[in-house]
Amino acid sequence: MDLATLIGIIFGVTLLGGAIVMDGNAIIFYNLRSILIVIGGTLAGTMISYSLGELLKIPALVRIAFQTHQLDSDEIIDLMVGFAEKARREGLLALEQDVVNINDDFLQKGIQLVVDGTDPELVRNIMETKLTFLEERHGKGRSIMATMGQLAPAFGMIGTLIGLIQMLSELDDPSKLGGGMAVALITTLYGALLANLLFIPLAGKLKERSEDEILTKEVIIEGVLSIQAGENPRIVDEKLRAFLAEDVHTGQSAGAEMDTMAVGDNA
Amino acid sequence: MDLATLIGIIFGVTLLGGAIVMDGNAIIFYNLRSILIVIGGTLAGTMISYSLGELLKIPALVRIAFQTHQLDSDEIIDLMVGFAEKARREGLLALEQDVVNINDDFLQKGIQLVVDGTDPELVRNIMETKLTFLEERHGKGRSIMATMGQLAPAFGMIGTLIGLIQMLSELDDPSKLGGGMAVALITTLYGALLANLLFIPLAGKLKERSEDEILTKEVIIEGVLSIQAGENPRIVDEKLRAFLAEDVHTGQSAGAEMDTMAVGDNA
Amino acid sequence: MDLATLIGIIFGVTLLGGAIVMDGNAIIFYNLRSILIVIGGTLAGTMISYSLGELLKIPALVRIAFQTHQLDSDEIIDLMVGFAEKARREGLLALEQDVVNINDDFLQKGIQLVVDGTDPELVRNIMETKLTFLEERHGKGRSIMATMGQLAPAFGMIGTLIGLIQMLSELDDPSKLGGGMAVALITTLYGALLANLLFIPLAGKLKERSEDEILTKEVIIEGVLSIQAGENPRIVDEKLRAFLAEDVHTGQSAGAEMDTMAVGDNA
Amino acid sequence: MDLATLIGIIFGVTLLGGAIVMDGNAIIFYNLRSILIVIGGTLAGTMISYSLGELLKIPALVRIAFQTHQLDSDEIIDLMVGFAEKARREGLLALEQDVVNINDDFLQKGIQLVVDGTDPELVRNIMETKLTFLEERHGKGRSIMATMGQLAPAFGMIGTLIGLIQMLSELDDPSKLGGGMAVALITTLYGALLANLLFIPLAGKLKERSEDEILTKEVIIEGVLSIQAGENPRIVDEKLRAFLAEDVHTGQSAGAEMDTMAVGDNA
Amino acid sequence: MDLATLIGIIFGVTLLGGAIVMDGNAIIFYNLRSILIVIGGTLAGTMISYSLGELLKIPALVRIAFQTHQLDSDEIIDLMVGFAEKARREGLLALEQDVVNINDDFLQKGIQLVVDGTDPELVRNIMETKLTFLEERHGKGRSIMATMGQLAPAFGMIGTLIGLIQMLSELDDPSKLGGGMAVALITTLYGALLANLLFIPLAGKLKERSEDEILTKEVIIEGVLSIQAGENPRIVDEKLRAFLAEDVHTGQSAGAEMDTMAVGDNA
Repeated sequence: MDLATLIGIIFGVTLLGGAIVMDGNAIIFYNLRSILIVIGGTLAGTMISYSLGELLKIPALVRIAFQTHQLDSDEIIDLMVGFAEKARREGLLALEQDVVNINDDFLQKGIQLVVDGTDPELVRNIMETKLTFLEERHGKGRSIMATMGQLAPAFGMIGTLIGLIQMLSELDDPSKLGGGMAVALITTLYGALLANLLFIPLAGKLKERSEDEILTKEVIIEGVLSIQAGENPRIVDEKLRAFLAEDVHTGQSAGAEMDTMAVGDNA
Repeated sequence: MDLATLIGIIFGVTLLGGAIVMDGNAIIFYNLRSILIVIGGTLAGTMISYSLGELLKIPALVRIAFQTHQLDSDEIIDLMVGFAEKARREGLLALEQDVVNINDDFLQKGIQLVVDGTDPELVRNIMETKLTFLEERHGKGRSIMATMGQLAPAFGMIGTLIGLIQMLSELDDPSKLGGGMAVALITTLYGALLANLLFIPLAGKLKERSEDEILTKEVIIEGVLSIQAGENPRIVDEKLRAFLAEDVHTGQSAGAEMDTMAVGDNA
Repeated sequence: MDLATLIGIIFGVTLLGGAIVMDGNAIIFYNLRSILIVIGGTLAGTMISYSLGELLKIPALVRIAFQTHQLDSDEIIDLMVGFAEKARREGLLALEQDVVNINDDFLQKGIQLVVDGTDPELVRNIMETKLTFLEERHGKGRSIMATMGQLAPAFGMIGTLIGLIQMLSELDDPSKLGGGMAVALITTLYGALLANLLFIPLAGKLKERSEDEILTKEVIIEGVLSIQAGENPRIVDEKLRAFLAEDVHTGQSAGAEMDTMAVGDNA
Repeated sequence: MDLATLIGIIFGVTLLGGAIVMDGNAIIFYNLRSILIVIGGTLAGTMISYSLGELLKIPALVRIAFQTHQLDSDEIIDLMVGFAEKARREGLLALEQDVVNINDDFLQKGIQLVVDGTDPELVRNIMETKLTFLEERHGKGRSIMATMGQLAPAFGMIGTLIGLIQMLSELDDPSKLGGGMAVALITTLYGALLANLLFIPLAGKLKERSEDEILTKEVIIEGVLSIQAGENPRIVDEKLRAFLAEDVHTGQSAGAEMDTMAVGDNA
Repeated sequence: MDLATLIGIIFGVTLLGGAIVMDGNAIIFYNLRSILIVIGGTLAGTMISYSLGELLKIPALVRIAFQTHQLDSDEIIDLMVGFAEKARREGLLALEQDVVNINDDFLQKGIQLVVDGTDPELVRNIMETKLTFLEERHGKGRSIMATMGQLAPAFGMIGTLIGLIQMLSELDDPSKLGGGMAVALITTLYGALLANLLFIPLAGKLKERSEDEILTKEVIIEGVLSIQAGENPRIVDEKLRAFLAEDVHTGQSAGAEMDTMAVGDNA
């Protein structure tokens, strides 16, 4: 599980729930009609924008956002450097027996192409085309979340307008104005909460996940082509780690930067 | 029919209609003047922005959004792989008799150019130019919808301003304030509904349709050039399927990803 | 005249005027001070943003938006295909006598360069540089309209703020609140109308005009270079029509798409 | 002086001032605290965003916006065509004596590099690098103005919120509500005026200035490289004027377009 | 310390604090629940958007914004020009003894690669890959700040909605309306202040820092490759200073421009 996403949602809900309860009666914040308008309207708008096939992926998208990122780039680089050594010693065909044991589909496909003696240009072509479509698929998932993040506040406002029009047109006793407005505003609140605590942050998280996955796939393409070209395993290692270095060391190096800077300050 | 679009609109209208009826008198939500201002203003602004020719395409645009996407990319790839085999065996001229039977205009034009012995560079040139203009035409259709999605809320607000100014300037009995405001707000509601339940989602749907069609056309260009180059049919097949693989397997692979991840969670 | 632009404005004004008159007293919508603030403020902001030379082009911009698009691309292609034939038969110098009769400045300049024996690379260079600056000039015209479309609502709001501050600070009789607010809101209405019925749609129309003109000029560049290269007139024709095909057939092909689809629906 | 900028500001201030005075008491629009909040908050936010060095350039930026554009591109082209002739006749070294008399730093540097016998690739490299950084510097200046144009309305709203909270929390006499709201709204008015009459239009003007200067520098790079390459002076002239043609003839040609079109209309 | 950032924050807080105190009771601006909603909600949304690793870098990001920029590009260029001279005289291997003394990690890595005899193409490859990931890391830091700058006002509005709904639904004594609204608006004020005085300006400052650092790294890449290519030290110097010239002279040259222009004005 990705703790940040889960903790974030629990923390946000607890906090806002607490703020609501702290000051009195929580029941006034529940309104079935408002839920129907905001969630229903958002779903309706999303259904019109995307095909059914895309919509059925929403639950999968949400689950992906909650998963810990498990691609171990270091392991994949070690694997590819090993292949590079073996290919240099025993030839590319010797990799055939390793193909079945690779548990990353993308790397497996790449090595298979190399073993089959496919032209390097075509290997790059096929793998980059696959990566391009992965990016597009990820982009579509993200854009569904972002669309929901735009529609939710819009339908929140629509619900409030409906409530206001009903309330105002039937207003005979001015003392009921306050209560009516309170009910009307609940829909706006629902829309704002759904967008800012759910849809927009989840779209952000999907973007981050996607970038990580694409980076790993770029490393794999570079590595497969280096193996095919029979490059020196040491150089393959150096080249592939350049892709990841910053990412892996970020925590450390950011800390290091800060330390040096802090020292500079004291001086 | 594209079920998602139709179901989305029916669902959205039913739901919002239900929410309105649920709480009382639906007749207060009908206002002829508001309809005139929002729809008329939106059409007027769109007419000024685009030429008449473009405007007359709006009904066709709406219909396209309701169509199920019918391009069967797999079938087109099979057809092209078949052409590649025939061309290798019997030469490019042998494709002449197949040209008339191709029921995709774009592919037909491409094969015709190949049969005519056009220079490959020029074939690519002509087909890519055609694709570029298809993209532009699609982009224009989408931008008409998006323009309407911007103008509708603007004229909704304009109608509310007109209503408020009239009501406030003639206000002698404060008890009528509520009813007057209710009527004034209806125009804003119409504008928001048209934009968020119709124009903006339809613009999104047109974008998705356009991307599908452009992808298929890119596959066709790649395939026609491979046929002309006399490439190995097996490799043509491999190359073209790389374009589609992710799209076709998405459902499955997303599911697969989830499963592995879910297993990882339980472990 | 471009009917869409004119009809759009007349339609919009009539409709909104009708909506105003329909419900009573139209005179309350006239306010000189509001006109001064919105139009004056918008002009002032635009004057600060652009140089005087640019501002004096506004009337010309507006007129362009009302013109029917008269560039006949088919005629220009026919002309260029004719030149290509003549150049092949009689040599490039034979075009000299035709130069003076060309009534498109851009094509004339191009053929003149070819007749002068200018290096093809330089011909492309000069013509593309000219086109780039045409695009920039068009872009500037459009951005003036877009700037006015942003400033008008801003000064509408500024006028309303001024009205509200005056009214509220002198409010002794609460019964006058309504009338005061009505007057204050008129400025916002003016700003919204000017932006959504005039400036923003006109900016859109200028964009469409510009795209048409640039497309024709791109066809001319391609044609002039083909003539200079002595390409086969039939291929020149084919290449240039690829640029326009979609544009010319749009109506038809959109209709055709619809028909096939409609048939598919009934089936 | 750039008349448009100055006239625009005077006109805008006069007009809005007039609109304020026209309807009564101008003194109610003066509020020291509102000035402090809007101007102070905008400056504070800008100071945090940019380094001190950048901030000290604001007065220079404002002055640049008021300057008439004085780069005479025609003169620079004449000068370079003259150099091209001299270089062809007497060799590149003959330009050495002219270098000190060039009063444009960028052209001077370019000719110096040519005289020094620098490799053409490196000349282009150095001059384009310089131009890139000029663009970045201009972009930064513009972004400071644009940042202020965003912060001013934000702090206007912040000031109004502060005023409303104070006023509402101490409200015992409802009849004072109007006056309190009037005062609170003044800050929003200040923010909107500063942004729409000053910061945003000045950012626009800086953009226009920057584009002019960059265009001239591009012409200089092209010219210096042509001189170094020993190109025919007549062709150098032709090539460089292609950059400027549209700009210089704009007024005329826009007029010409209109005339032909107008004639077409009458016909 | 970066004075602008610190002074900006102190100045902004003092000024707004002063404006609040000036007019009375400051205590009404303190509300614990509002702080919890705005800060808690913003943190929750940010946690959902980013992984835990990214969030823990926020304090480091803030500290970086407060640091004075300490990269002395001139010193680095001098160092590299020195290396270029030494490498020309004594060969690339002679640089080995200098590597350990370089206190810039990026330059050290580059020289090490050169000393190791790595292929120039690969040196550029590795260094540019590292730079690309530095840019991405910086971009992510900035986007965290920008996300917080968007979420803070959103949760400010959410808090105000919660407050309004509670207040209105329990409103029995209309005289308490003012006080209730004052409390509800405080959350909006907090959100607007955090965004406009902290998050958005800090995101801007991080962008400026990042651009400076990337520029220096680009200079280093260019320099390392020139050293490896054995270029003339004088030309290396010239080439590298072209990157920085504008930046270093900005103050002066902007001043110079102003002077000339001012003189032009007086004339």
